[in-house]
Amino acid sequence: MEKQQLVEEMTKIVGAENVQSKEEELYSYSYDATPGHIYMPDVVVSPGTTEEVSKVLKFANEHKIPVYTRGSGTNLSAGTAPLKGGIVLSMLRFKKIIDVDLENLIAEVEAGVIVQDINDHIAQFGLIYPPDPGTVKTASLGGTIAENSGGLRGLKYGITKNYVQGLEVVLANGDVLHTGGKNVKDVSGYDMTKLFTGSEGTLGVVTKALLKLVPAPEKTKSMVAIFDTIEDAGRAVSGIIAAKIIPATLEILDNATIRTVEDFMHVGLPTDADAILLIEVDGHPTVVEDEADKVMKVLEENNAREVTLARDAKHKEQLWTARRMALPCLAKLRPTTFVEDATVPRSKIPAFLAIVKKAAKDHNVTIGTFGHAGDGNMHPTIVCDLRDEEETKRVHEAMDDIFRGAVELGGTLSGEHGIGLGKLPWMELQHGKEGMEAMRQIKRALDPNLILNPGKLIGEC
Amino acid sequence: MEKQQLVEEMTKIVGAENVQSKEEELYSYSYDATPGHIYMPDVVVSPGTTEEVSKVLKFANEHKIPVYTRGSGTNLSAGTAPLKGGIVLSMLRFKKIIDVDLENLIAEVEAGVIVQDINDHIAQFGLIYPPDPGTVKTASLGGTIAENSGGLRGLKYGITKNYVQGLEVVLANGDVLHTGGKNVKDVSGYDMTKLFTGSEGTLGVVTKALLKLVPAPEKTKSMVAIFDTIEDAGRAVSGIIAAKIIPATLEILDNATIRTVEDFMHVGLPTDADAILLIEVDGHPTVVEDEADKVMKVLEENNAREVTLARDAKHKEQLWTARRMALPCLAKLRPTTFVEDATVPRSKIPAFLAIVKKAAKDHNVTIGTFGHAGDGNMHPTIVCDLRDEEETKRVHEAMDDIFRGAVELGGTLSGEHGIGLGKLPWMELQHGKEGMEAMRQIKRALDPNLILNPGKLIGEC
Repeated sequence: MEKQQLVEEMTKIVGAENVQSKEEELYSYSYDATPGHIYMPDVVVSPGTTEEVSKVLKFANEHKIPVYTRGSGTNLSAGTAPLKGGIVLSMLRFKKIIDVDLENLIAEVEAGVIVQDINDHIAQFGLIYPPDPGTVKTASLGGTIAENSGGLRGLKYGITKNYVQGLEVVLANGDVLHTGGKNVKDVSGYDMTKLFTGSEGTLGVVTKALLKLVPAPEKTKSMVAIFDTIEDAGRAVSGIIAAKIIPATLEILDNATIRTVEDFMHVGLPTDADAILLIEVDGHPTVVEDEADKVMKVLEENNAREVTLARDAKHKEQLWTARRMALPCLAKLRPTTFVEDATVPRSKIPAFLAIVKKAAKDHNVTIGTFGHAGDGNMHPTIVCDLRDEEETKRVHEAMDDIFRGAVELGGTLSGEHGIGLGKLPWMELQHGKEGMEAMRQIKRALDPNLILNPGKLIGEC
Repeated sequence: MEKQQLVEEMTKIVGAENVQSKEEELYSYSYDATPGHIYMPDVVVSPGTTEEVSKVLKFANEHKIPVYTRGSGTNLSAGTAPLKGGIVLSMLRFKKIIDVDLENLIAEVEAGVIVQDINDHIAQFGLIYPPDPGTVKTASLGGTIAENSGGLRGLKYGITKNYVQGLEVVLANGDVLHTGGKNVKDVSGYDMTKLFTGSEGTLGVVTKALLKLVPAPEKTKSMVAIFDTIEDAGRAVSGIIAAKIIPATLEILDNATIRTVEDFMHVGLPTDADAILLIEVDGHPTVVEDEADKVMKVLEENNAREVTLARDAKHKEQLWTARRMALPCLAKLRPTTFVEDATVPRSKIPAFLAIVKKAAKDHNVTIGTFGHAGDGNMHPTIVCDLRDEEETKRVHEAMDDIFRGAVELGGTLSGEHGIGLGKLPWMELQHGKEGMEAMRQIKRALDPNLILNPGKLIGEC
């Protein structure tokens, strides 16, 4: 279809003010937070109602035009990059928090709402929506549902899919589905809610969600521990879990990350330390005290050189600086930053960290590693310059070692960022031919013309 | 295909000792725990390995022979009844607990293991596998995965799907899939684990599962409260949740159930009470004391006539008799027992109980109601005599009122028993034409010859 005709048809559905097609407008939607994936769409369409989404999809389906659904574009696996052109469907006009049902602890929220805004709104009721990806202040709910985002509280509280109880989804053919509901238990039919959550926009467009809320913890206690060897830090992580404590947060930073943060921030981090652990326990005040004591003991037993307890929220924020600034600081080192999220069973963290270290050495690339030690979800972050072809080749070789290593340890390519385009080459390694074919069959069943985020997650179909 | 030929082919795959085809043998597999669904299979096949399952399915798929996978047959929605004859695939030879990984808190268990046996085995490590359907001592793991079973601890601990982290599944074409893994976080590909869990054997045959285990609670405290009106009991339930307490167990019994249990058991239940609540809180000792106090206060505020705290485990078992014997006693009243599990959002429990009461009155049928008040999952239990056609007609009219009422309240047809054949007539009411079609597309994609548990869950395809 001619671009001009497509623009006219879209204008009929959503109005001229919600259609963008100038080169400079399109450029902003040609990429997301993943390096190396820039593709120009033909048109950006911003529907305001489910009915408009349905009409756009129906038209696109009839004319086999690719549709790339997009929230804030903070994706780290090129999940929203419009690989094959066509329509970018911007969902940011869906920004209503429709209802907070205090009796059933459920919020009904539109897909374009920013995740932090949900938490800001429900704080007045003493409730929280636990999923908190690093991008919580910018990411849209719909994007986090499509990617099944995790975050720093994943260990204790789980990830997005644990909190999505129901969805309004528009299918490729324009059909509007309502899945799940406010019921705590529901086994009626296939679990379509969970199928769409984490499907990266390849099966349908989420317009609305029912979110499970939980009471905010009464108390939290945070601490930071410094280790001379990363092996001791790894043993401390295992020791905490073995002591039957599930901290809300249990994060690790390696030496490369510590040094980089200190270089930029000058906050007094020990640059000779091999690892830092950040731990937060939360819940009932007595339990928090009890668990904090046990954690301290485990840290000492595993040779923590220094342990600092946060005196208050402000002090905690200071202590947490190293973690919060890890990615921004690493990103400043070089023009290009790849944040990976290969995840392994908790017990395999030391083995995985060794694989990352070896990959950095073997291929002469710079990798800082930080992440969610408690749930085995590491972020080996490779900094480089994509314009340097020779270096880029080495970076991909290092990635290959890391992903293959993770899968061999019984791990997964992605703990929270999704597959998108970035990890596609390794999907068959993890899921096998049979697994890929089963997923492609589902894709073809729900989107036979392959218009939804084509080329992603399961590749060509 | 001739039955004799089918028996011969199956014998080639699994050996003569694992094939049953005599009339009297087949009869035992012609029904499950659901009244009114008796269908004779042609052959019962008991494979011992995944490879054998694969061969059986491949053969059945090529010859379009229906396959009804079966564990212990405790299903309450005719999920295992062999509606169209063919093969009953008995999975009870899959009875190995393969591994308990204490570092990652994961058990690897074959599909034929009885759920209670898992808990008996892991108790030595201070761990529990929380899903505990009423049939925990007889149900096979595979059956509870197929049905996504719930139980008495569902409110706090969730249901089967919250604990299934990975599966080995054989598809209709004989392909063997391995989904999920030991990773706490995993967003690589569609969530096939959740899709198969609760799919009632219509998408694949589960041979093995990775189960998430959790530390056993340090302490529990149990109590029983008696109410003069069911409305007060309902308000007490809401009050407990509003006080931000999530009990491990929060069960209700109505007057019809109380009277029936007392008639048979003579345990001193107050037959004039309109409702009884059973509550158990568990966790850290201090929290348990604290929560028990708060619960007592809520019970008093809502006019509980009498509250009894269990002195110890034995006393608790006595107090729990009424709940444990509810179904067996109701079942003794009449020849036929339908245990339904329509579930509503927690806040709608009083409205739902009123609907059940009215249905019993309007259609002159006997309904005792008990169930998981905390999560809105009620068990209206209709006793009758299926041989009485006129009564059976009235029973179905009452069911119709109950299911329509539940869906109108934003509820679901099934909280934990599954759809099977029993609730098929109301599926479109809950999911709409679009929802049913989307589910059927998935079924046709993964099982194009429709051999797996045909006729169930989504009906004819």
